[in-house]
Amino acid sequence: MIDQHELAYKKILAHSLETTLLGSVESVLAWDQETYMPSAAIELRSKQLEMLAHLVHKHHTSPKFKKLLNSLIDLEHGTYATTSFTEGQLANLREWRRDYLKMAKLPSSFVKTFARTTSQAQHVWAEAKRTNRFDLFQPYLDKIILLNRKKANFLGFQEHPYDALIDLYEPDMTVRELTPIFARLKLALMTLLREIASKPAPHRDFLHKQYPPHQQMQFAHLLLKTMGFEPETSRLDLSMHPFCSCISPNDTRMTTHVHHEDPMANFFAVLHEGGHGLYGLGRPIEHFGSPLSESVSLGVDESQSRFWETIIGHSLPFWHYFFPLLEEQFPDQLGGIDLETFHRAINSVRPSLIRIHSDEVTYSLHIIIRFELEKALIEGSLKSKELPEAWNEKMREYLGVAPSQDSEGCLQDIHWSMGAMGYFPTYTLGNLYAAQIFSTFKKKYPQWETKVAQGDLRFIRDWLKSTLHCCGRLYPPRELMQKITGQPLNEQPYLDYLNEKFRSLYKL
Amino acid sequence: MIDQHELAYKKILAHSLETTLLGSVESVLAWDQETYMPSAAIELRSKQLEMLAHLVHKHHTSPKFKKLLNSLIDLEHGTYATTSFTEGQLANLREWRRDYLKMAKLPSSFVKTFARTTSQAQHVWAEAKRTNRFDLFQPYLDKIILLNRKKANFLGFQEHPYDALIDLYEPDMTVRELTPIFARLKLALMTLLREIASKPAPHRDFLHKQYPPHQQMQFAHLLLKTMGFEPETSRLDLSMHPFCSCISPNDTRMTTHVHHEDPMANFFAVLHEGGHGLYGLGRPIEHFGSPLSESVSLGVDESQSRFWETIIGHSLPFWHYFFPLLEEQFPDQLGGIDLETFHRAINSVRPSLIRIHSDEVTYSLHIIIRFELEKALIEGSLKSKELPEAWNEKMREYLGVAPSQDSEGCLQDIHWSMGAMGYFPTYTLGNLYAAQIFSTFKKKYPQWETKVAQGDLRFIRDWLKSTLHCCGRLYPPRELMQKITGQPLNEQPYLDYLNEKFRSLYKL
Repeated sequence: MIDQHELAYKKILAHSLETTLLGSVESVLAWDQETYMPSAAIELRSKQLEMLAHLVHKHHTSPKFKKLLNSLIDLEHGTYATTSFTEGQLANLREWRRDYLKMAKLPSSFVKTFARTTSQAQHVWAEAKRTNRFDLFQPYLDKIILLNRKKANFLGFQEHPYDALIDLYEPDMTVRELTPIFARLKLALMTLLREIASKPAPHRDFLHKQYPPHQQMQFAHLLLKTMGFEPETSRLDLSMHPFCSCISPNDTRMTTHVHHEDPMANFFAVLHEGGHGLYGLGRPIEHFGSPLSESVSLGVDESQSRFWETIIGHSLPFWHYFFPLLEEQFPDQLGGIDLETFHRAINSVRPSLIRIHSDEVTYSLHIIIRFELEKALIEGSLKSKELPEAWNEKMREYLGVAPSQDSEGCLQDIHWSMGAMGYFPTYTLGNLYAAQIFSTFKKKYPQWETKVAQGDLRFIRDWLKSTLHCCGRLYPPRELMQKITGQPLNEQPYLDYLNEKFRSLYKL
Repeated sequence: MIDQHELAYKKILAHSLETTLLGSVESVLAWDQETYMPSAAIELRSKQLEMLAHLVHKHHTSPKFKKLLNSLIDLEHGTYATTSFTEGQLANLREWRRDYLKMAKLPSSFVKTFARTTSQAQHVWAEAKRTNRFDLFQPYLDKIILLNRKKANFLGFQEHPYDALIDLYEPDMTVRELTPIFARLKLALMTLLREIASKPAPHRDFLHKQYPPHQQMQFAHLLLKTMGFEPETSRLDLSMHPFCSCISPNDTRMTTHVHHEDPMANFFAVLHEGGHGLYGLGRPIEHFGSPLSESVSLGVDESQSRFWETIIGHSLPFWHYFFPLLEEQFPDQLGGIDLETFHRAINSVRPSLIRIHSDEVTYSLHIIIRFELEKALIEGSLKSKELPEAWNEKMREYLGVAPSQDSEGCLQDIHWSMGAMGYFPTYTLGNLYAAQIFSTFKKKYPQWETKVAQGDLRFIRDWLKSTLHCCGRLYPPRELMQKITGQPLNEQPYLDYLNEKFRSLYKL
């Protein structure tokens, strides 16, 4: 690079570090809010976060930054100013341009309106869910649909306004690509589910005895330690809803929630957030402050949490190692239960009304329902007032159960009230990616079950780190997955994984 | 007010709120750093705090703010643009002007150099203290003295450069005012100490048995609850050094440190930080974001912590109520000890090398030594290389003990390495103010001992809130203390309090 380019690149990097720092401050405040903040502080916290969000947006769209960036990569066409950039620098410039264009397309008055409306909508949604009154939420849902259509128009799209929205969470994903995959997935899952439903349900009462919180947390810490977490760079705390906050590759904080009579919900939340957490810790710290150290997409991030929670964490070898330790911790609750019974119990499949309570087979059906409905809402083929009925109908059709009240139906998730439409599909993408990654992993480690059964999980962490985490946003998600799995996004590995596992478990 | 003034005032208020919000974010991060942050995150945390400090300074000195402020109060002469301001508005404008002038006088290049030098100096000081090598720290001390002289010159002063420095922590305090007070105090304390030293030392071994941490914390929480703290607005956590973080009147967080064999150090730290905490909670939340909701000075803030820690927390009526509860919690450790023995033990006086381990009689002597030395360093009458010897000599003279190594001598405190010169006197001001406030309090509540002996502490909190906390920076500290205590700053109430208490305890 000639000096002038080098200087501009350094300045962009410094600017990007500042933006990242502001974002990381937001993360600390958000974590504090859900863990230790005294409850009366919520009003001030909202003001602090609003101010930081404003500062971040100002940074992202600063004219100084735009000018610098444009001197290295043409903002309109994406062509580089010189051929002498390294691969990493090219990726950073590409991703900075991508982020800048997104941000700059949204007028700041729109950003404010969107923030204010969704902030109100979340309050109304909580009340509507609590009192089971969809009519309270409906006017806000209408506003949010309208705002999302506007957002799509600001951002621009080629085929479907929904493409502009999902692109915010999963870069370059489209309705055209998702629709056939989800359609095939849906049919296959419904078939598998029907077959499973004809079999007797596994015995699982022993999972719902009293499991003291203190002992649950000891086991939760053991899980994280075995996954490779260290106290110097990570923590586990309690919160109402489990989450993972990747503040930096040196500071990753997971939370869980203790249900006295449902310890597995706690442990699987820990494994899930632990998967996100390892992705946070595995990204290159030397690139902190630039896209090379960032999460590449929500779908890929979710693949990491689902990989640990379901593929590894619900597997027989995993519990071959951990079940005796669990039994030792809870001898009264688990006495007389053998490993196979336990494994069958934690993998029992039964259609649930609630997405977050659902098993591996039904989970994606919940997502597909949301995908189909929000797409229809955005394109206008479904009206908001028709939503509850459409929801219940799809539940009946795909899962064979339907809620008797909207609080357990279309009001159950917070996402729409937050203005997030196009987000849901990333949950299922996470499952699909995880299964594709698992195919590659099995080829690389044909003996993985033996190792895991001995309590060795570090090799998994290390492989995921050196294969995926270390890339940050070096490649767009599509390219990254192709590189790692040797194939484009498809549902087959996931279906193969589910069929193999559940046909054996249920003796189909 | 005419509309134009009203509008300008509103804009200033909004700007001030933003500055306060940024400061409150700094507080959350600083609290997190000392309590829950994983250790490897320290480098990123420094960067986050540096960035926020920069933003706060930019806010404080923004030309837009200057122009607005100058339209309501003449920045040069302090005259108001209109007579129609309320008392609170006048106070806010006066204090905004005060803060602005301080900030604006320091060139931003100086602020950066100061921050960088003291950041390095803290690392070097920690190493120098650890290895007992004053020679390591001396060059940094020289830099810090020089920087503080420069700072004093930037800020301006009438009689002594030290006046400009102490004014940063205790507005309008001067060497001329402090010197005679501290001189009289020193003589009186030395006299009292000599008399006490001739008496047998109270028995106190029972305070240094094993006191399990968990039970210590139960008692610590009981203390705070009785003082009037509520979990909705406050917390108590653990940290290496106890501190109080008043993030807002709805979010005040105290920390303590548990010594297994010194429970009273924990409990007195809790009472001390609790005193700061109640001041934080007692300031008017409706004025949050403006000086009317801020701490008026370090000395007054310290008067609140010392009031609770020493005057109330070391009193006989206080332990009349709490000692039986403490005994119940620790029956093995305190069995057979009566209240009087306990009270004598916690009030035992013995010269210590270390400031933070010292009792009520010797504490201010430690402070006066630091005041005399740092004043001499600033004016140049003492050279940095002469500091260790000068320190030891004063220790011998005032306290009758002297350290055999500098790590227990002039290297013991972090303050100078942080660049804080002029800070130490506020500790003794806190004691003097507390005793003056106590005189007024006793007149208002002649039956206070009876109430406290029954476990009633809320009336003290309420009185301090309605008398002092509620004022924020409505009056400058000198005026506030005159209003509350009816007299100017003087050492007599403190000496009366100490003499009455310790002459009785030691039967002098």
